[in-house]
Amino acid sequence: DILERPEGLELGGDLRRVTIMMADIRGFTTISENLAPAQVVTMINRYLGAMTDIIMAQQGTIDEFIGDAILAVFGAPQRREDDADRAARCALQMQAAMDEVNRLNQADGLPEIKTGIALNTGDVIAGNIGSERRSKYGFVGHPMNVTSRIEDATAGGDILIADSTLQALRGNYQTEAGEPLKVKGIHELLRVHRLLGETT
Amino acid sequence: DILERPEGLELGGDLRRVTIMMADIRGFTTISENLAPAQVVTMINRYLGAMTDIIMAQQGTIDEFIGDAILAVFGAPQRREDDADRAARCALQMQAAMDEVNRLNQADGLPEIKTGIALNTGDVIAGNIGSERRSKYGFVGHPMNVTSRIEDATAGGDILIADSTLQALRGNYQTEAGEPLKVKGIHELLRVHRLLGETT
Repeated sequence: DILERPEGLELGGDLRRVTIMMADIRGFTTISENLAPAQVVTMINRYLGAMTDIIMAQQGTIDEFIGDAILAVFGAPQRREDDADRAARCALQMQAAMDEVNRLNQADGLPEIKTGIALNTGDVIAGNIGSERRSKYGFVGHPMNVTSRIEDATAGGDILIADSTLQALRGNYQTEAGEPLKVKGIHELLRVHRLLGETT
Repeated sequence: DILERPEGLELGGDLRRVTIMMADIRGFTTISENLAPAQVVTMINRYLGAMTDIIMAQQGTIDEFIGDAILAVFGAPQRREDDADRAARCALQMQAAMDEVNRLNQADGLPEIKTGIALNTGDVIAGNIGSERRSKYGFVGHPMNVTSRIEDATAGGDILIADSTLQALRGNYQTEAGEPLKVKGIHELLRVHRLLGETT
């Protein structure tokens, strides 16, 4: 049975420590209101294509695109020691790649876009979620909701990471303290850090 | 070309008037913290299985499961005159089906769950969203965000519908006024109605 499930994936769902990434284009709905539908789809797909390449190169698992938003996870189905580090490097490379995305947008007469990226590390339930007709490998748990709240607090160009992610990092990074966040269902304010770069 | 795209689906994306449904189990993250991972997945999948059957019977398009949340659309890729009505009947049937979901949960020693459902009608951009490696038929636009805000305001057992959906309904339904909602990016409060039943 273990050989048949080399990743240790339990059919019924299991608890996994993962680093969750949520990213979206800040203010994209407002930007899209001044564009033709085909332009909106061109912009989203150019952005998602560039981001997907980076996430896959860093061995992240893309859970979902929801409009212009990306939900990805590092550490499931396959756990690696450097899950948090790959997520952090992925986020830095994603922000760096926005210059090229915007160069192409500008060449097409399209507006500049900026993405905000949130990282959070915690234990989630991973499993095949859905119905007999339609199911997918998905994630449930409080850390998912917390990541969404951090994402809401990002500005364009930001990478905000939870204290849990900072603690999980093995490499050396430049960070600065972010404004603590109020998260529904948690009494204490959530400590977050702005990820600025990797120190070599 | 029109014959090849009988639904009128433009490859680049097009503007569609749709009724959007978002549903989720209220407080499920907290409920799930007291359960084993396999129990959590059993509960979610029982719920999603029952809801999916109803949504598909009403010809809704399931865009996504995100954890225990469901995003579905009525009116794309195929537009029908009764899109809003099928969405409303679907929501009523989904709430009615929760009795059976909870009967099965109780038989397994699992806690009761309640779902909140939001409906909103508006123009969204529909298209194939994603990258070359991975794309899906998806939706972008302000009405998506508004639906999410309405969903946030639902309590377990609620169906809250936007005024835009009420105006689009052709059948006769019992409704009562809900508390107007503050929505980010909109100056006026959003009028919502609680959908109670269909009048025959």
